[in-house]
Amino acid sequence: MTYSADLVPGTVTLVGGGPGDPGLLTVAGLEAVRQADVILYDRLAPVAVMDENPHAERVPVGKVPRGPYVPQERTNELLIEHAQAGRKVVRLKGGDSFVFGRGGEEWQACAAAGVPVRIIPGVTSCVAGPELMGVPLTHRHMVQGFTVVSGHVAPGDTRSELDWAQIAKTGTTLVILMGVAHIDDIAARLIDGGLAGDTPVAVIADASLPTQRSLTTTLEKAAEDMATAGIKPPAISIVGDVAGLGLDETRIHEPSDH
Amino acid sequence: MTYSADLVPGTVTLVGGGPGDPGLLTVAGLEAVRQADVILYDRLAPVAVMDENPHAERVPVGKVPRGPYVPQERTNELLIEHAQAGRKVVRLKGGDSFVFGRGGEEWQACAAAGVPVRIIPGVTSCVAGPELMGVPLTHRHMVQGFTVVSGHVAPGDTRSELDWAQIAKTGTTLVILMGVAHIDDIAARLIDGGLAGDTPVAVIADASLPTQRSLTTTLEKAAEDMATAGIKPPAISIVGDVAGLGLDETRIHEPSDH
Repeated sequence: MTYSADLVPGTVTLVGGGPGDPGLLTVAGLEAVRQADVILYDRLAPVAVMDENPHAERVPVGKVPRGPYVPQERTNELLIEHAQAGRKVVRLKGGDSFVFGRGGEEWQACAAAGVPVRIIPGVTSCVAGPELMGVPLTHRHMVQGFTVVSGHVAPGDTRSELDWAQIAKTGTTLVILMGVAHIDDIAARLIDGGLAGDTPVAVIADASLPTQRSLTTTLEKAAEDMATAGIKPPAISIVGDVAGLGLDETRIHEPSDH
Repeated sequence: MTYSADLVPGTVTLVGGGPGDPGLLTVAGLEAVRQADVILYDRLAPVAVMDENPHAERVPVGKVPRGPYVPQERTNELLIEHAQAGRKVVRLKGGDSFVFGRGGEEWQACAAAGVPVRIIPGVTSCVAGPELMGVPLTHRHMVQGFTVVSGHVAPGDTRSELDWAQIAKTGTTLVILMGVAHIDDIAARLIDGGLAGDTPVAVIADASLPTQRSLTTTLEKAAEDMATAGIKPPAISIVGDVAGLGLDETRIHEPSDH
């Protein structure tokens, strides 16, 4: 298996850890964790898999529950320092490193320092989350594409680089990550952009974890229903007809399901 | 590991197999393959992993090189028949089952027949492909989202459900799957829709496989450059500024790289 190739001392391997369940890590990602001298991880990474390698030093970075906040620039420095010390460095992230994972920035920093980088893609939550509640992002004769955006910046904020009215007009399924806090504003912009108020919306929080929760609602009721249900980040919202397919009722629930 | 739960006789497990390299299958997906009584697979699945289970019956479906073409309706029937015979059925696909994978249809068919379905998400090629050539789909201060569409239907075809002019206006990175045949038409529509002719385009074929090939071009030169390079399906095209980041030069190339 190519991607199970041995880690090289003095290099950094960016591992996409998947949505959270350790079984959704890739075979190659697990092998990299097992070989690492040091693992830099954050709160969304599947931390339990690190038990597969009791010898690796564990370095929390980013936002870690009850831990310090490590800014991205410091994380970049740590990756480089550990690699330049001749260690096999693994950067373990949740989801995929390149979907709102800042993997590109870490790669750029390593490249600038002359540290070689290896990439092991992961299961991205933006696809797996919807899937785990029975929502396919594409569906024959229904929709031929999907759009993934981050909702962590409010639509009216000057830092927002998204044109929600245009996004409403793509005709594709819309997947909103990190959108819990601003869902009322986002929904209003999408309706202003032309989407019907009764467009189906599916929401899943803590996808694949024992604490997984999901609900189905509509664009005009999403903010209220999410608040009533107490949906907390990290959550994924899916807007479009596929959100109303209702396949989840026939799913085999995992042992961890509530 | 939750997703490594045992398969249940009389059920179907939809396994996303990742882009092709066996190491990019999930731990849970590999375990499902090992436990299966029968595996229905198609040409884009990581077929080598089936060697992990020499006892499973292998049933080619969909499009199989040098094999018969099995229509989707027959695949659905086969899944149901094998499950109703009390077997542990695995449906092994390339990428993720729910991204242009027709997993939703298979799930619907099983549900209608009373066959329980389990889902194991996979590494989707639409993210992993770009990643494996150093293209992050999102990048801080550059782009906050991405749009994934299928280009297998020509823009002017009456069966096309995509509004390419609107897609050009989203301001997100654009990922086009199955777009090799119609790239000239697609590029023209995107330029008509407002994208600059010199917008960077990255193309990767056979992502993660020993035959992986990639190139970087622009929207106005994409069709010509892809033809000159002899790019063949399956290939993924990425349109947007991230396609020009050029991180691949610092990547550790896998043993299979050419």
